[in-house]
Amino acid sequence: MSVIVSIDTADVRFPTSQSLDGSDAMNPDPDYSAAYLVVHTDAADGLEGHGFVFTIGRGNEVQLTAISTVAEHLRGRNVEALLDDMGATSAELIGDSQLRWLGPEKGVMHMAIGAVINALWDLKAKRACMPLWQLLSRMRPEELVNLVDFRYLSDALTRDEALAILRASEPGRADRERQLLESGFPAYTTTPGWLGYSDEKLARLCREAMDEGFPQIKLKVGADLDDDIRRMRIAREVCGPDYPIAIDANQRWDVAAAIEWVTALASFSPSWVEEPTSPDDILGHAAIARGIAPIPVATGEHVQNRIVFKQLMQAGALEIVQIDATRVGGVNENIAILLLAAKFGLTVCPHAGGVGLCELVQHLSMFDFVAVAGTTEGRMIEFVDHLHEHFVTPIEVERGAYRAPLAPGSGAEMRASSIRDFRWAGAHHSAGDAPLVAEFAAS
Amino acid sequence: MSVIVSIDTADVRFPTSQSLDGSDAMNPDPDYSAAYLVVHTDAADGLEGHGFVFTIGRGNEVQLTAISTVAEHLRGRNVEALLDDMGATSAELIGDSQLRWLGPEKGVMHMAIGAVINALWDLKAKRACMPLWQLLSRMRPEELVNLVDFRYLSDALTRDEALAILRASEPGRADRERQLLESGFPAYTTTPGWLGYSDEKLARLCREAMDEGFPQIKLKVGADLDDDIRRMRIAREVCGPDYPIAIDANQRWDVAAAIEWVTALASFSPSWVEEPTSPDDILGHAAIARGIAPIPVATGEHVQNRIVFKQLMQAGALEIVQIDATRVGGVNENIAILLLAAKFGLTVCPHAGGVGLCELVQHLSMFDFVAVAGTTEGRMIEFVDHLHEHFVTPIEVERGAYRAPLAPGSGAEMRASSIRDFRWAGAHHSAGDAPLVAEFAAS
Repeated sequence: MSVIVSIDTADVRFPTSQSLDGSDAMNPDPDYSAAYLVVHTDAADGLEGHGFVFTIGRGNEVQLTAISTVAEHLRGRNVEALLDDMGATSAELIGDSQLRWLGPEKGVMHMAIGAVINALWDLKAKRACMPLWQLLSRMRPEELVNLVDFRYLSDALTRDEALAILRASEPGRADRERQLLESGFPAYTTTPGWLGYSDEKLARLCREAMDEGFPQIKLKVGADLDDDIRRMRIAREVCGPDYPIAIDANQRWDVAAAIEWVTALASFSPSWVEEPTSPDDILGHAAIARGIAPIPVATGEHVQNRIVFKQLMQAGALEIVQIDATRVGGVNENIAILLLAAKFGLTVCPHAGGVGLCELVQHLSMFDFVAVAGTTEGRMIEFVDHLHEHFVTPIEVERGAYRAPLAPGSGAEMRASSIRDFRWAGAHHSAGDAPLVAEFAAS
Repeated sequence: MSVIVSIDTADVRFPTSQSLDGSDAMNPDPDYSAAYLVVHTDAADGLEGHGFVFTIGRGNEVQLTAISTVAEHLRGRNVEALLDDMGATSAELIGDSQLRWLGPEKGVMHMAIGAVINALWDLKAKRACMPLWQLLSRMRPEELVNLVDFRYLSDALTRDEALAILRASEPGRADRERQLLESGFPAYTTTPGWLGYSDEKLARLCREAMDEGFPQIKLKVGADLDDDIRRMRIAREVCGPDYPIAIDANQRWDVAAAIEWVTALASFSPSWVEEPTSPDDILGHAAIARGIAPIPVATGEHVQNRIVFKQLMQAGALEIVQIDATRVGGVNENIAILLLAAKFGLTVCPHAGGVGLCELVQHLSMFDFVAVAGTTEGRMIEFVDHLHEHFVTPIEVERGAYRAPLAPGSGAEMRASSIRDFRWAGAHHSAGDAPLVAEFAAS
């Protein structure tokens, strides 16, 4: 028996916006960041559990405070008891009746729960000496459904239905694991598509993406329609009429504007339209999906939990399910979402990029392939070639596919030198300023 | 011209879990708490802006960290510029591109924005020497629509439609203000209905509520059906067949369970069923509403923003709109929700109780009556007789009605002695324990 003895946290921020060193705290560009934790036990194996929430800069300190608060549940706890029943562990964290008030099951508190749960999964996989995808893929269907919180899902997916889905794909697991180890899992790239690239750079990157074997690229849209038409035309000319080109609006539009804008781009046959409107707007996504059919709607990187995913599916509001490794309540809730997607026959193409999201989410797609959906048909994991060098076991993408990771764990572990070098020194304001906010004087 | 010079914060927690007041099916042991802030300026008037987020204990420190982060936007800012265009001020806080990642517009970050916005409204009302409800009620329709963020609302409510609603009720404002000052605004009480009270206490409190003139009581349900049937029978016997008795499940059920449970209580004619399921489950609420009609569904205290309220209305999922003063992005977003309710012809009955929620939310209902909906028909503000003594201008409820407050401000200001006496000393664990969570050693 071993117990949890300490948890380290770190506020890690990479200066991916060019003016981070300036004094402007209102900088609109993202600083890819991680609210990071490491779980230590007193076991002789010396294994640690690593996890994090991905953020884009300011507010990373709020996320860390939330992680510290959630992590109090682990104080002095028996490690084996926690890891042997990860369903109960997740339910305990999500069920904290006082912390629920700050969600429930959404935003900062829910992502903190996800990071703690994911750190425990990292430890569990390391103890099992398996990569997380393999650990999950080898669990029995009965064990897997025990990980899932079916509360608020039963009108769309029951425990028995989930069990049937998992049992149906059980016979092919060993074959698919071999296939995965041999061929990897398809990746698509967002590298060509950022706003602000010159037309020449766009064309060059499109060509390179095809040459490198990626089965799809994605372009950011939504700032200016004329620009989008021009950029889509260039991409289509370079890539040819049949190559899949997705577009991503990052929540830019209201319902009518989304339909109008996408209609104006429809002749370029986008393979999906991503985040056309607010991630909270289930009925809005459904109206957009009807308005732009047969172009598919994709969303999920900001979808707060399984309950919203359930409704997006019930409403016919999306075809492409973009799970994110650090947005929801961790591995457990992502398994619920994968099961919902299987029930509704939808295609899972995870969100990745940022920092560490590729490293984490590949395990979920690979588990989905081996033990849930049983196919890679139409499925791709987003790939962005940023910041992988900071991880102990960075992803390997070759010929448009993620190679299946073999190292034990979840992929979350960041290099100690990276944590040291990119620790945030605090304070967005100038160093000489007096603190603006202070504790009320206890007089 | 004056500038913001400092902001004080305080972690205030009342040990309410020691009694069973406030216990329901999902929140067995709340410690009613406030993540509190005070905005100070260098103006000679010495006026301060007070605001807070209501929480139920653990996690209050996370909420405070979020408030400190959001409040950085106010550093050195011109007070008049901020207060003169509260629409722009709200848009700036909500639009922070890095902080958006932690929501967007939900949970801890969004409530922090709401507290900062509400503190500025408190200051603005004090400067105008008016209670907040009156300040809002005397703003021109054009000024009021400028407070609202119509992004993601336009498929249900446009700026022009909102303007038409406000203009239509403009002629009667003065009459209704007089009526409000004379008669107050109806209140209903939840005091009799907490789980864990004995049958005798329940009966006695029901009788007292009627005697005190409240037009409705509310009972918590959802823990045990046999208990609920017995408690509803007692309440119905005491109150008679026609007296409105609402029930509140605090998110306890899935869809099928909600319909089944409420059907079993239908013979007691509940006047509404509150929070039957997850506040995120729009389609679930709609299915429940269809399944239990004509019993109305009420929800809102945990509804994260105007976008989810919009959909609940579009889906026919609720009849009673329970706005909350500290859940969404402050006064501005609550005005959006009041306008949505007016557009859909729904009844607004705010959530209150906790600590300070009655003090705050009465202003919104009174504004709604004077300048938006123009009626109190079927409308009531929740009343719970807890913790009012800690406020500088506590609510006054007489003969089942909130008296219109006359003191300048929003009602948020807590007594300095209460803040001092109930400051949280930190650490949920035993005092002798070593810290579990520590910053990663920078080596």
